[in-house]
Amino acid sequence: MTRAPRHATARPTATVGRAVPRPRRSRPTLPRGVGGTGTVRKTVLPGGLRVVTEAVPSVRSASFGIWAAVGSRDETPELNGATHYLEHLLFKGTATRSALEISSVIEEVGGEMNAFTTKEFTCYYARVLDTDLPLAIDVVCDMLTDSLIAPEEVEAERGVILEEIAMTDDDPSDGVHDLFAHTLLGDSPLGRPVLGTVETVNGLSRDGIADFYRAHYDPTRLVVTAAGNVDHETVVERVRKAFERGGALSGAASAEPAPPRSGRHGISTAGRLDVIDRRTEQVHLVLGMPGVSRNDERRWALSVLSTALGGGMSSRLFQEIREKRGLAYSVYSHTSGYADCGLFGIYAGCRPAQVGEVLELCREQLTEVARQGIDEDETRRAIGQLAGSTVLGLEDTGSLMHRLGKSEICWGEQLSVDDLLTRIAAVTPDDVRKVAAEVLGQQPSLSVIGRLTDRQAARLPAAVAV
Amino acid sequence: MTRAPRHATARPTATVGRAVPRPRRSRPTLPRGVGGTGTVRKTVLPGGLRVVTEAVPSVRSASFGIWAAVGSRDETPELNGATHYLEHLLFKGTATRSALEISSVIEEVGGEMNAFTTKEFTCYYARVLDTDLPLAIDVVCDMLTDSLIAPEEVEAERGVILEEIAMTDDDPSDGVHDLFAHTLLGDSPLGRPVLGTVETVNGLSRDGIADFYRAHYDPTRLVVTAAGNVDHETVVERVRKAFERGGALSGAASAEPAPPRSGRHGISTAGRLDVIDRRTEQVHLVLGMPGVSRNDERRWALSVLSTALGGGMSSRLFQEIREKRGLAYSVYSHTSGYADCGLFGIYAGCRPAQVGEVLELCREQLTEVARQGIDEDETRRAIGQLAGSTVLGLEDTGSLMHRLGKSEICWGEQLSVDDLLTRIAAVTPDDVRKVAAEVLGQQPSLSVIGRLTDRQAARLPAAVAV
Repeated sequence: MTRAPRHATARPTATVGRAVPRPRRSRPTLPRGVGGTGTVRKTVLPGGLRVVTEAVPSVRSASFGIWAAVGSRDETPELNGATHYLEHLLFKGTATRSALEISSVIEEVGGEMNAFTTKEFTCYYARVLDTDLPLAIDVVCDMLTDSLIAPEEVEAERGVILEEIAMTDDDPSDGVHDLFAHTLLGDSPLGRPVLGTVETVNGLSRDGIADFYRAHYDPTRLVVTAAGNVDHETVVERVRKAFERGGALSGAASAEPAPPRSGRHGISTAGRLDVIDRRTEQVHLVLGMPGVSRNDERRWALSVLSTALGGGMSSRLFQEIREKRGLAYSVYSHTSGYADCGLFGIYAGCRPAQVGEVLELCREQLTEVARQGIDEDETRRAIGQLAGSTVLGLEDTGSLMHRLGKSEICWGEQLSVDDLLTRIAAVTPDDVRKVAAEVLGQQPSLSVIGRLTDRQAARLPAAVAV
Repeated sequence: MTRAPRHATARPTATVGRAVPRPRRSRPTLPRGVGGTGTVRKTVLPGGLRVVTEAVPSVRSASFGIWAAVGSRDETPELNGATHYLEHLLFKGTATRSALEISSVIEEVGGEMNAFTTKEFTCYYARVLDTDLPLAIDVVCDMLTDSLIAPEEVEAERGVILEEIAMTDDDPSDGVHDLFAHTLLGDSPLGRPVLGTVETVNGLSRDGIADFYRAHYDPTRLVVTAAGNVDHETVVERVRKAFERGGALSGAASAEPAPPRSGRHGISTAGRLDVIDRRTEQVHLVLGMPGVSRNDERRWALSVLSTALGGGMSSRLFQEIREKRGLAYSVYSHTSGYADCGLFGIYAGCRPAQVGEVLELCREQLTEVARQGIDEDETRRAIGQLAGSTVLGLEDTGSLMHRLGKSEICWGEQLSVDDLLTRIAAVTPDDVRKVAAEVLGQQPSLSVIGRLTDRQAARLPAAVAV
């Protein structure tokens, strides 16, 4: 594999996902079928399996995915890591295909296949030339409906997952986000890591994972998505046949798709400070607080706020911490929204001597924005940034497929790009001021990985003081 | 910034870049103007500035880049890191724009702007909606032709670069590739790191970098590229005006573009073993040897070989080390080709107790493939993988723009996708056997970052023994 250029300067780019047109320069919204978005159609098969497609006839590729409404928050403490372990195991063979056959059939036509697990859902996908779509449908459906979960594969894969955990431990810029979730959410389903721990992964049995598979991979909780040069009817027909072959649609012809996840997870953590002492060159930190759920109407304003505060090179944090003072290479803000709660945080990585000043600057910005919001110009620029990046982010079939699946799993409906853009364009400086006061006005917590001297560590508590 | 799903299972995908149709399933090559590739045109402006565009009218975006034929191999030992430092500084302001203005003008329309530095070239680029292309051209040209390199910015940015070095030191899965280059190429221009070291970066002066800028950013050594919904004449005209405004085209109307870089860098290193002791969870290693230059006719066969050996989930190394034995999470082979030499290596990351067995398996594969090559089926699959991934990799305008620039800088010409596909389709198992014997048959060297017990370390020398 040829490696990508390695010294790309990590200048952060804006959130892709929820966005908005820019008010100043008027421009028509993206016409359907041109340059990205196409015609979206949805069919519910007997058995409750949803199939959602977006046809974009101008491209030559197709992306296909199957989404399961199960994530690590569905695990008991003992099963922590089972969802992700299962995701690995579905690649390891079915009644009719070995692991090598699963991967080679897609790779030999130049396609790519992968999967990922989050706290609330799991996705398996392939991207191929449009003529190879039938192949991709067959293989991914086979994996999902007819996996063997053979005991010897479970054992071999345990080693791979323990290596993955070790790799994550070696990447503190990533690991500090897991720590931050734990700082704010504690030892709760959402606070635990997706990968599980060495202990829980060592404790997972073949039967425990197989039970988990049977319990959660029910057609009513799966969503099939395809985007690119695809034909809805053909996709539906192929998926139906593939699921029938696996016996996965039998028995419950009248079943309804499961509704989106709901929940009541309040977060009351404030002022917590977690430090993992590890010998690294940089100290990696997240300073933040509870955000809003993905169903909260304030999420549009919070996206605009996060973009203005730390969403790009022109954001406040990048300007104050990197451009003006050279204190960090990577600094940004981020939001995550779950069904019933959310997180807001600022990440920075810097050498230990810089930590005190970086935290002071972050806290200063949080306080100022909580009190005063952002000005009209910042609001306008952030809205423009979110809008443009949304449209630009819809140019590949993988992103389109991803949007379909996430919308269906998280909201149970498809919001059109126009609707998305309208929602964000409607955000006013007043909306931002309000959500800033409510979210950024909360007492922050802090998660740190790195090694500090006593003197440097003594400056941490001030960042989370009232 | 919303963070991407973090537990994507890193299943490697094939090399994008040079590729090939698959012989078994016949399929017409990609028609021009459909699904990615468009019409390529090139103009040389007075002053020797090349402008290359690829028009794809079916998309709504445009990518624009300027490439400079200068990289870290052009630095003296004292100037090591100057090319990359300069890349950072060009974002810090021109006679008419501050750093904030440079970034906000692109970000507020939702575009993204970035840059990267390699050992042989540097690239600055922006991706925007097609209607914003004039803006992107103006800003990127302004940065390249009229940078102030203000002394106070040089000082602030020094901190950012020292942070970037610290960050790389904290990512051993990346850093081990720098170490491998040094293991094989030593303290030579190609063996030194692109970022420089803490010592050289601290030693770089404003005037030294400004001299470097003037010496290397000459129009004859720059290439301008644009891809997407672009019009060649319009791009040429805008670029000409922008360069004239910066005074960058004056004085040498008859200048010819500089030819591609040549050189004579032989590598005779063999059997070297470099270990950096660092306390990490995983040990990160590269086992490899000299490869071939990017002008070497054997590069097509070596790409096929590398794909079959370690280019994806169905490759030999992935199957033997991960799928069957669960010894590593990430394992792959890679090639890099410079003007006059190249590297071939196998990367693996695994816990210390696994290192001995992983190295044995890697060495076994190297020996076996050097003796026997790969079989017809493996050759066919690897060719299909390279071909398909090449075509799929040309669906976004950023990739198209990147291909134009790299081709012009490295080969001084544009190879069409059809030509590319033809070159790789022509590779035979015999070609692969020959290059396998020549490249993989050499005595390997080994680079390691991590902490091993004495007993574990005692198994390293066998991996590089004759």
